[in-house]
This record gives sequence, C-alpha cells and structure tokens, in this order.
Amino acid sequence: MSTYQLYQELTQRAADFRNAAAVLEWDQETYMPVNGYAARGRQLASLSAQAHELLTSAAYEHTLAQLRHENTLTWEQAENVRLSIEDLEKNKKLPPSFVAELSKASSSALAAWIEARKKNDYQIFAPELQKMVGLKKEQAARYGYVAHPYDALLDDYEKGATVALLDPIFQRIRTALPPLLEAISKAQQVSDRFLRQHFEKKDQFQFSLDVLQAMGYDFAAGRQDYSEHPFTTSFSPQDVRITTRVDEQDFCSLFFSSIHEGGHALYEQGLPLSQEGLPLCSATSLAIHESQSRLWENCIGRGKEFWTHFYKPLQARFPTQLKDISLDTFYAGINKVYPSLIRTEADEISYHFHVLIRYEIEKELLEEQITATDLPRIWAEKYQHYLGITPTDDVHGILQDVHWAHGSFGYFPTYSLGSFYAVQFWQKAKQDIQGLNHQIGSGDFRQLLAWLRQHIHQHGRRYRSEALCTRITQEPLQVEHFLNYAWEKYQHIYGITR
Amino acid sequence: MSTYQLYQELTQRAADFRNAAAVLEWDQETYMPVNGYAARGRQLASLSAQAHELLTSAAYEHTLAQLRHENTLTWEQAENVRLSIEDLEKNKKLPPSFVAELSKASSSALAAWIEARKKNDYQIFAPELQKMVGLKKEQAARYGYVAHPYDALLDDYEKGATVALLDPIFQRIRTALPPLLEAISKAQQVSDRFLRQHFEKKDQFQFSLDVLQAMGYDFAAGRQDYSEHPFTTSFSPQDVRITTRVDEQDFCSLFFSSIHEGGHALYEQGLPLSQEGLPLCSATSLAIHESQSRLWENCIGRGKEFWTHFYKPLQARFPTQLKDISLDTFYAGINKVYPSLIRTEADEISYHFHVLIRYEIEKELLEEQITATDLPRIWAEKYQHYLGITPTDDVHGILQDVHWAHGSFGYFPTYSLGSFYAVQFWQKAKQDIQGLNHQIGSGDFRQLLAWLRQHIHQHGRRYRSEALCTRITQEPLQVEHFLNYAWEKYQHIYGITR
Repeated sequence: MSTYQLYQELTQRAADFRNAAAVLEWDQETYMPVNGYAARGRQLASLSAQAHELLTSAAYEHTLAQLRHENTLTWEQAENVRLSIEDLEKNKKLPPSFVAELSKASSSALAAWIEARKKNDYQIFAPELQKMVGLKKEQAARYGYVAHPYDALLDDYEKGATVALLDPIFQRIRTALPPLLEAISKAQQVSDRFLRQHFEKKDQFQFSLDVLQAMGYDFAAGRQDYSEHPFTTSFSPQDVRITTRVDEQDFCSLFFSSIHEGGHALYEQGLPLSQEGLPLCSATSLAIHESQSRLWENCIGRGKEFWTHFYKPLQARFPTQLKDISLDTFYAGINKVYPSLIRTEADEISYHFHVLIRYEIEKELLEEQITATDLPRIWAEKYQHYLGITPTDDVHGILQDVHWAHGSFGYFPTYSLGSFYAVQFWQKAKQDIQGLNHQIGSGDFRQLLAWLRQHIHQHGRRYRSEALCTRITQEPLQVEHFLNYAWEKYQHIYGITR
Repeated sequence: MSTYQLYQELTQRAADFRNAAAVLEWDQETYMPVNGYAARGRQLASLSAQAHELLTSAAYEHTLAQLRHENTLTWEQAENVRLSIEDLEKNKKLPPSFVAELSKASSSALAAWIEARKKNDYQIFAPELQKMVGLKKEQAARYGYVAHPYDALLDDYEKGATVALLDPIFQRIRTALPPLLEAISKAQQVSDRFLRQHFEKKDQFQFSLDVLQAMGYDFAAGRQDYSEHPFTTSFSPQDVRITTRVDEQDFCSLFFSSIHEGGHALYEQGLPLSQEGLPLCSATSLAIHESQSRLWENCIGRGKEFWTHFYKPLQARFPTQLKDISLDTFYAGINKVYPSLIRTEADEISYHFHVLIRYEIEKELLEEQITATDLPRIWAEKYQHYLGITPTDDVHGILQDVHWAHGSFGYFPTYSLGSFYAVQFWQKAKQDIQGLNHQIGSGDFRQLLAWLRQHIHQHGRRYRSEALCTRITQEPLQVEHFLNYAWEKYQHIYGITR
C-alpha cells in the first residue's frame, strides 16, 4: 500500500465514523422514539471520539509528514494532503483535556439554555454563557491570532475571514439598510394575510417535493422528512437529506425552509464523488454553503420569475385559498418587509440586523466590554436602535438561538456573508447564462444548476471563500451587490425610490 | 478506574459501535435513498471492524484475564465477565484472515443469490453455496466439536444445541405431524377467501398499532415502519423498533408480521437496562427469541380468545369486508392449514416441514453426502415426500430464503425450536396465571407480559435455552407439548379426532 493509500484509508475511515454519527443524528431529529436519547448520546460520543482518535493518531500524523514533501501526487491528492495537514495542525492546538472541557461546558450550557427557555428566564443561562465566553477566549488564544481573538474563532467556520473583513461590511449595512427600511415603512404596505390561511400539510409537502424535483435535487440520492428545526445532512454525495417543518396556518414556513435546505443539499450532492471521505469532497465554508441556500430561497424562490411558473400549480393545489390572489399580490406578500423579533422568520432586509446584533455582542463579550449578565439590556437597546422594536421576553429575544450554548461564536456572521455571496453569484450567473430569467420563468433550472456545479460545487474545499468568489466574479465579496439587488427588488414591490 | 469499570467501558463502547451499525441497517431497510448503498456498506464495515478490534484487543483480553479470578464482583458483574470470556475464547478461534474470507464469500454468495433469483436459476448460486459449505466445515473444525460438525455451527445461534438434541425432536415431527396433516386434508375444508379482499393499507397499519399497544409494546421506546422484509432491531432496551410489510389483498401479511415482530420487541424492551451494553442485556438465544415472537403470533394472535376481544374492533375498521363473516369463520380462516411452497407463508403445522427439510439438507451437505449441485432434485423429492407438493421453480423452492448466502447454517432449526418453546411456555403461563384466557378475551395482556418479563426477559443471557426452559417449566424442551397443542387446536377447527 502506498503512503497516499494509507492516508486515504485512514481519512475515509474517520469519515465513515463521522457519517455514521450524522445518520444517528438525522434519526434522532426525525424518527427516534423519545426514550432513545440516553443511548443515542453515548453512541454519538463513541463515534466522534473514534473519528477524533484516528485523525490525531501518531500513525496518521506520520503518514501526513511523509506525504508533505511527496512530489508524485496528482493535484487532487496534493490538495487533500494540504488540507488534511491544515486540519491536523489546527486540531493539535487544542489538547484533549481542553476539548473535553469545552464539550462538557457545551453540554451544561445546552441544558441551561433549554431550562432557561422553558422558564423564559435568561439569567438561568447567563453564568453558563459567561463560562463559555471564557473558554472561547482560551480557545482563540490556543489557536493564535494576529489582530483580534474573534478572528481565530471565525476560522472554525469561515477560513480566512477576520474582523478586519467583517467590520466594513457590517458598517455598510449599518448605514445603507436603514434608509431602505425607512422608505419601505413609509410606503403603501403590502398584505400577506392570505398566506396565513389553512394550508393542508400533505399538500404543502407535495408542492415542496415538486419544486425540489424541478430544482434538480436527486431523490435517488436524498429525501425530505419532518423535524422540529429544518436541516440538511449528508452521509455521502449519494445520500444527502433535508428536513422541513410545517405550519398549516402559514404557507411560508414549510416552503421556504424546503427550498433553503434544497439549496444546501444541491451543493452536497454536487461535491466530487471521486474524492468521497477526503477533504476535497467537503464544502468551502459555512458562508459559501449559506450562499447556496440563500440563492435558491431568496434570489430564486422569492423572485418574480420563479412564481411566473410555479404560481399556477400552487393555485391549483390550494384553489380556495389562492383563487382570488393575483400573482403580483402573492409575490408582494411573500416579500413583505417588517421588523420582527425572530431571526429565522425575518425578511430579506431586516434579517441582517439580527446577525449584526449578534456579531456586535460576540465581539464585545470577547473584548470584555460587557458580560453575559448585561445582555438583556443590551439586546433590548440594540433591537430598539436598529429595528425599532423591543423583545417581549427572553424567549423572543436573546434565548431564541441555540448557537451560543453550543459554543458557536463566529458562526452568525456567516449567515449574512452567505446572503451577500448569494447575490453576487446570482448576478454573475445572470450575466453568464443567456435567458436565465426566462428559463426560471419556465421552471427550468438546469443551466443554473450546471453553472453552480461548475463554478462552486465541484471544487469542494479546493478554494477558500474569497478566492472562490474572486475566481467566479472577478472581485472579492462586495456588499454593494446585495444593496443594489435589495433596492431594485423593493423599489418595484413598494413603489419607492432610492 | 477499577478493572471491572475498564472492562465495562470497553464492552459498552463496542456495543455503541454495534448499535450504531444497527441504526444504519434499520435506515437502510426503511428510508435510505437507493443511491446510498455504496457509502452505507463502507460505513457498516468500518463500524463492525471497530467493534471487533475492540473486543479482540490485547487490552480487552488482559482485562478479562484479570477479572477471571476476581472474587469481589457482584453476581451480575461475574456473569458478564463469564459470558465475555466465553465470547472472547470463541472469537479467538477464528483468525482475522478466515473472518475476512468468510465475509468475502458471503458478499459474493449474496450477489449470486440475488442474480439467481432474478433469473430464477439456482445453478448460478450453486458454486457459491458449495464454497460456503466448505468454509462452514472449516469454521466448524476451527471451533471444534465432539460429535458432529453441525454442533459447532448451531452454537453460533443456539448455545448448547446439538444434533443429538435436534434429531429426536425432528424425528418426532416426522412421525407425529403427518397423521394430523392427513386428518385435516380429509376433513371439511375451511375458507380463507374473505381474507383476500382489499384491506386499506393505513387501516391495517393502525389496527396493528392498536394491538401492539395492547400487548404492552412501549411506543416511547419503539416504533413501527415499513420494510421489504419485516424485522426487529434494538439499539437499547429504550429504542427497539419493528418493521412490517403490507399486502392490501391479504389481511394476514401485515397483521401477523406485526404481532410476530412485536413479540421479539417485547423481549428486547424487557432486557435489563441496568446491564445495557453488557452480555446480560442480550437475549438467551435465537430459539428463545423466536419463542417470544411465536407465542404472540400463534398461541395468542391465532387463538380464539384474542379475537373474542379484537374481532369487533377489526370488523369496525373493515365493515364492508367482514360484516358477514362470523368470529368462528374468521378464526378458522386465519388458521387454515394447507401445504404450500413458501416457508414464511406456511401455517402453524406444515411450517415445520420447511424447517425439517432445511435441517436435513444442511446436515447432508456438511456430511458430504450430497453437493450443492444436487439440491433442486433433492428439494423437490423432500417437498413431495413431506408435503405432497413440488416447487414450480427455484424462486419458489430452494432460492426462497437468503440464509445460506449469509453463511447461516444451523439457523433454520431455531425457528422450529422457537415454536416448540413457545407452546411449552404458553402452557405454563396458563397454569401460573389464573384466568389468563379470560384476560386475553378482554384484551388484557398485562399479567402475561409481567410473567414473560419475570421468567424470561429480565434474565437476558444469564441462562442457556435448556436451563431457562427447565427453570420455568421444570422440564427440558418437550415437543409433545406442541403436538398436543396442535391436535387440540385443529380438532376444534376441523372437527377431527386424534
């Protein structure tokens, strides 16, 4: 066996354990009976320990050290080795005792967050959060950083992203979006009441399947099920599953979560199968992943062309609910902008203030300008400042997202980055593909998917986000594309001018 | 950490990998998209290799060696150690190279069996089967045996069972059952045509759920799904799942497979949770497992008392199909006896000839009295001899079961043993529980389940089959109980005399 074959076997075996864990997690969120939790927790812990053990073993490290200067490798082999070395060197910065401490703190924070949500009392969670902030600072110090500890944490989700990159982007959001929100709030309001009628569960589900099919999601290599929180998971590019949720009193809940997860899933199905279990067969970053879900959810699924084709089938499925609603009214309704308390239910514009607020707080916590105890007051001030609204309680405020309990600091910004990348890719795709709007208006997404496959999916982790973006659009991420897109879209819907 | 704790941790970690594999297999049979097979195969191989590696590691062996003479253990601890040593010593008899060869031969035999079934041509499978027979002989030699190589193979499924035990049992079947079959064939025949009407899938499923609920199957620790072949699987006593299949033109297919798997599942849910992941938290043997499924399926689910309670709800669910069918007619119909070609569809009596034929052939193959090439002729002769019928083709003959492709020689007899144990336990339960028939006639299975839990389930692997049977019924397995039960039951249904 060659050294590369040995490397490949070890890496793929670790991937087998991670993928097996992903199957167990999928099952836990979809079908597992309630009493199964205790055993499932142990099984998951054993699987992740095993994958970790393999990838930090002396044998693995030795194999990579041998391959580092090997010059007979193909470019894919060399890329896999380079990325595995990058991962290993990062892994080695956290001693097992610290990883265990972080994992314990996360379990404990999660339990506190659940309890705090149940009692609608953030202060139950605050001490755990403060402890987590301390550990994240330690983690950042262990990883090392040049300018800001937040940079080290961002690197877990978005390699190469830094505060120096994000600050100007969010500063632009801070100044450029409020005028748009203000113009919209002064315009004639659009109605979305017709979306809040009874839409039968199985009809909603079937409609989403029809749309996923049209998008090119391969049901021979995937499926859609229900779970409390929608997600995408992959056990192989040949088995990529999505979940959704349903609210029979709100058409948007299932549909937009399905198309969003469908976007993630198309990315996973398009990763290079020949590199399965190896670094090249994984996504670039969270932001690029999110660019795929947002492109399908917002640029397409909330676009006029899409509904030019799909509104008729939707009306046919829900004749009593939609027979008197015109395409224009429907289109305006699904794009209604109004500041609200919950990030995951936010419109395309105010969404970014939810993220901005998390970003500001995360930085301030790491910089020790504030402590976890202060957060409800700070949260209320920021929501008032940016969106003109005040949380009614903790569950609709600071407790709404689980991320901090998991120790995910530096994760939130990738949601906004993803939306901005999405628009930049979308504009480029429209330039590259002649008649793309017309194709979408006919329910034909084949050229668009081929474009995404060619420019993004097939590369896996080969390029980092900013390199990939420049490669595709000949410039790094420019938030102006998003701002132009947003103004143009909402000018039409609300009859406003910039 | 004490030595026992170390042993416990290693054993439970191996169980985590095995249970994770069981989740992946469940998923494969229920929900996995078709393209998922390749990746799933690799994931399963990695998990089972990991479990095997742990349980044959020097560290594990050393720990057991230390515990062998440890005298401060509780009785449960001592039992776990004893059973783990038993397993380890058996495992060590097969070198990894032989295990790999067996596994390769089994994959190849499985592929040939699938191909042979597709083309309805047994001779495609014959060379693979002959090779498998050679390997099973080698396996028996490596295990070691006193009287017959078959004894060594039986030991994998039914510890302590031997040809010396089985031969007299099957000899009794050979002589005692044909007169019963003959008496039935000469009697007034009963009708089961009403069972072959259209029974709506979801109503069949719901009825089976109602029955499972009444049996005491805990849906907080289990669930029922569809799969091609019904099975029971367990990832913990707190997560025991069953599957079923449906034929909308045959009421019996879903119902009796559900109640059968439900019997297996009650056993798994009743294993001692305090010993989870350790030998004591596993079943005695395949025959005892089968005794639980057969007791519920046949003694109860094909019994008159059961339907005294459940026939009304069934009629209410299928009013047009059953309104003119009396309870007596229904009861006779679900117990109709007629020799048929397929084991899994056989009635309670002729079933055992299907098993007997497999048993005879397995022994003759191992004794080299016959070869795989001869089997279609031998199969036809035996079916003619015992059941008076001749297979129409290979798919309805020798290719009907997958077991031999898996290398499972010595497995079939446990089906019959299970039925015989079931009756012996059932008769004892009726003696022990006052008014049991009346309880069942009211749909109340609580005392019966408590009895099974007390006498069988809670003991896990503590006793071997014959010891457990003697402990419960004060005698070893006696096939006469089954024969008496069968004569009594069918005398009533067919109006015959012994």
